[in-house]
Amino acid sequence: MKARVKWIDGRQFVGINERNAGVVMDSLVEAGGEGVGFKPTELLLIALAGCTAVDVVTILRKKKQKVTGFSVEVEGMQRQEFPQSFEDMKIIYKVKGENIDKAAIERAIQLSEEKYCSVRATLEGNPRITHTYEIED
Amino acid sequence: MKARVKWIDGRQFVGINERNAGVVMDSLVEAGGEGVGFKPTELLLIALAGCTAVDVVTILRKKKQKVTGFSVEVEGMQRQEFPQSFEDMKIIYKVKGENIDKAAIERAIQLSEEKYCSVRATLEGNPRITHTYEIED
Repeated sequence: MKARVKWIDGRQFVGINERNAGVVMDSLVEAGGEGVGFKPTELLLIALAGCTAVDVVTILRKKKQKVTGFSVEVEGMQRQEFPQSFEDMKIIYKVKGENIDKAAIERAIQLSEEKYCSVRATLEGNPRITHTYEIED
Repeated sequence: MKARVKWIDGRQFVGINERNAGVVMDSLVEAGGEGVGFKPTELLLIALAGCTAVDVVTILRKKKQKVTGFSVEVEGMQRQEFPQSFEDMKIIYKVKGENIDKAAIERAIQLSEEKYCSVRATLEGNPRITHTYEIED
């Protein structure tokens, strides 16, 4: 799998995949950028959240759960000192639907954590990753 | 730092940061998605490339290098088995400019690797990350 990042100017870049989708990255204004688009560290959080999200929603639907809405929030805590690696990441799964089974959610999250989520597996042993979930009828 | 991911449908999601920038994620058609936007694993590669790219271009400019173009290519090799974590990542820095000093590039890459790149530091000890660079006049 390949991707590339092209400099626009200042601290602003565009990230491009092999199918020519693009995403703009920048630093915040207070860090010398223009604050357009995503910080690279935000894309890391979104990569993790998106990876586990697709696993969990797919497994829930295979388990015949009537999912009508689904989102994942992710919070990352970084070191103060350089390098400012993430020490903790917290994932909140929010599932909306009819009579959603808690055991199905827990099993789906476990399968994502242990087997399917490539991004999470690539982070293994580094940030402490915890999760909770909420069900909304 | 927070971010969230909202389910659109199928295997398609939108990732959103705290300043409401959005990026679409999806699986490839052959994996049951519609292939719109980015795979989460591609965003991981782009997060790494973008993180080191901003470090390197900023350091080169501080070192008074006349950089007129800059891009970073990144290639990731994943395990065949689940979880399909990245085992190797290869970064190619491409610097365009007038009389660019090789030592300045090497020092800039080293500082990014060892001190500044938060994404790389969060991956520490997992994929083997290697790099090369090319200079274009």
